[in-house]
Amino acid sequence: MSDTFEIKAKDGKARNGVLNTMHGSVETPFFMPVATKAAVKHIIPDDLKEMKANAIIANALILDLNPGAKFIKERGGLHKFMNYNGIIFTDSGGFQMIRNSFYEKTTKDGVIFKDVLNQNKKFLATPEYVVKIQEELGSDVIMVLDDHNKYGLDKEKHAKAVEQTYQWGKRCLEAKTGKNLMFGIIQGGTFPDLRKKSAELTASLGFDGIAIGGLGIGETEEEQKEAIDICINILPENKPRYVMGVGNPLQMLVAVKLGIDCFDSTYPTQNARHDTIFTRKGKIDIAKGKHKEEQVPLCDDCDCYVCKNYSRSYIRHLVKMDEPIAHRLKSFHNVRFMQKLLEDARVAIKDGKFEEFFNKFKKGWER
Amino acid sequence: MSDTFEIKAKDGKARNGVLNTMHGSVETPFFMPVATKAAVKHIIPDDLKEMKANAIIANALILDLNPGAKFIKERGGLHKFMNYNGIIFTDSGGFQMIRNSFYEKTTKDGVIFKDVLNQNKKFLATPEYVVKIQEELGSDVIMVLDDHNKYGLDKEKHAKAVEQTYQWGKRCLEAKTGKNLMFGIIQGGTFPDLRKKSAELTASLGFDGIAIGGLGIGETEEEQKEAIDICINILPENKPRYVMGVGNPLQMLVAVKLGIDCFDSTYPTQNARHDTIFTRKGKIDIAKGKHKEEQVPLCDDCDCYVCKNYSRSYIRHLVKMDEPIAHRLKSFHNVRFMQKLLEDARVAIKDGKFEEFFNKFKKGWER
Repeated sequence: MSDTFEIKAKDGKARNGVLNTMHGSVETPFFMPVATKAAVKHIIPDDLKEMKANAIIANALILDLNPGAKFIKERGGLHKFMNYNGIIFTDSGGFQMIRNSFYEKTTKDGVIFKDVLNQNKKFLATPEYVVKIQEELGSDVIMVLDDHNKYGLDKEKHAKAVEQTYQWGKRCLEAKTGKNLMFGIIQGGTFPDLRKKSAELTASLGFDGIAIGGLGIGETEEEQKEAIDICINILPENKPRYVMGVGNPLQMLVAVKLGIDCFDSTYPTQNARHDTIFTRKGKIDIAKGKHKEEQVPLCDDCDCYVCKNYSRSYIRHLVKMDEPIAHRLKSFHNVRFMQKLLEDARVAIKDGKFEEFFNKFKKGWER
Repeated sequence: MSDTFEIKAKDGKARNGVLNTMHGSVETPFFMPVATKAAVKHIIPDDLKEMKANAIIANALILDLNPGAKFIKERGGLHKFMNYNGIIFTDSGGFQMIRNSFYEKTTKDGVIFKDVLNQNKKFLATPEYVVKIQEELGSDVIMVLDDHNKYGLDKEKHAKAVEQTYQWGKRCLEAKTGKNLMFGIIQGGTFPDLRKKSAELTASLGFDGIAIGGLGIGETEEEQKEAIDICINILPENKPRYVMGVGNPLQMLVAVKLGIDCFDSTYPTQNARHDTIFTRKGKIDIAKGKHKEEQVPLCDDCDCYVCKNYSRSYIRHLVKMDEPIAHRLKSFHNVRFMQKLLEDARVAIKDGKFEEFFNKFKKGWER
């Protein structure tokens, strides 16, 4: 696996490494903005380059519904279609199982989904099919089809999902035909023994990397931490580890500390749309009156384009006036904030100072 | 006036010149995107630089309501507040007289407006007041308070507006204290004798430039052309001439041909929001199915960032999926289209080929 993933430095369990793909390399730990439908909300592909977001995640199932994976393949693949030359992960659709607008039912063969735009149009997503569409998109990292339960379901359902995800993972590996990397997914909810079993089963299959799924969907911070920790203790050292759907900055650093390398989440863009701005001194609500007169950047110690050029006062004015560019400026800052946070985390790991960095960030964030 | 405006070339009545202001120079004829509330819709100030939009127009009255002209002055003026170092024209509020949400009534002293966000809050905008707030904003070109009628009112009302606008224009000139330029405004609706009289009165006052107001609000193309032509025949050669609110590309070139130097309009951004894209071969509706498979730029011969990087196919996908960045890409293209159109018009005037350029554009646009 040394070709795909190399660890460069360790500090406690935290790791700094390099993940190599068909579209270049990315240093770990890293955060991926979410481009479900081939676009990050309010952020164009060129912005991603500017903010050094070298990897993003799109959703193969949703893109296959519109405009179609085959359609995108005929246009030269997803990178060309959206004009993004970085690394693209694609999710398989497993996550859509917890959305009632998408999910119909699960069978041994795969998942029956509804088209969210046309609830009468139903289709079966098999492991083989989700690999095929991800290959059509030209994904750098294919995610397997996982059996994704909602938070809070009973243990029996989660046990079944662990077994199903294992079986589907095997079928995904067999179906793979290209040079794309493939990551397996661990399920098991918040049941320690199921997480352990799922981690063992997933690790046994020889994926290029391993994701921990089913988190960031309502569990407590303690449950999340425990689930990650159980998996990490089983996963091989030499494979990249990805927690799906976790994008709260502090939770992300907690996971880095446990040994996680890769993240994705809509958290920064969703917060931006609700006027919540990330700073190293905690979150602020930029719509509040107290920011009206502040002729300072959104975030003092941020190097982003928005913080270099616009004041809180101006951005609050745009928010209050409902000017469309407000969303763009807020989103740009929050996503760059995530990139910078992990850049700094990587430096701290290299310098053997991750614990110090973590504590300093936690103190500021929780102010 | 040679300091403020220099004519460099003429081709028939069409002129190429330079307008010099406190924030640099702009070659004429030029088009100004509209930043009513200190922001162009979906376009950030840095985009304006990139697309070589060297002048914009904001609305002093609306900015005085939120966040306040004095507030912006305390923050270093409008240029600094919105981080735009180009030329800023500001409108006086006259145009808001045709909006029922703003307009209460007209008196000899000025116009009584309502705050659009709080209809119980009423205030009197005098000529002196609108000059004061434009000076507070640090406007490069102050527009006088004009008595702006709706299209289709009777001649008596328009005659009164011509006289009122003349009186207010005098008071504006007297109220001016700074180095800002000031443009007078011609009214008179679609009545040739009133336009003639208003042009004579306005020209007599020694403004730095003269605008033709009350157009682009429902009149026919012929009425618009006639009104402009009457004014041009009276206006001095050595002052810049500005038609307010006209932004239809072809109508704009018609006005250039008649001797107009300056334009502003929300037309390109409004069209963009409704999926109408400008090309040299006419307008297209990018939402239509026929564009789904087109792997070509929005506009073949466009040099803009969007056309260099994204396909019709991708942009149509974003439109259909309601992705926020669709508006940004469409707006950027349409506004740059206007800039490029006038850049090409300037070259044509210099080369003595404006007629040829005009005919070629007209043929393409009307396809």
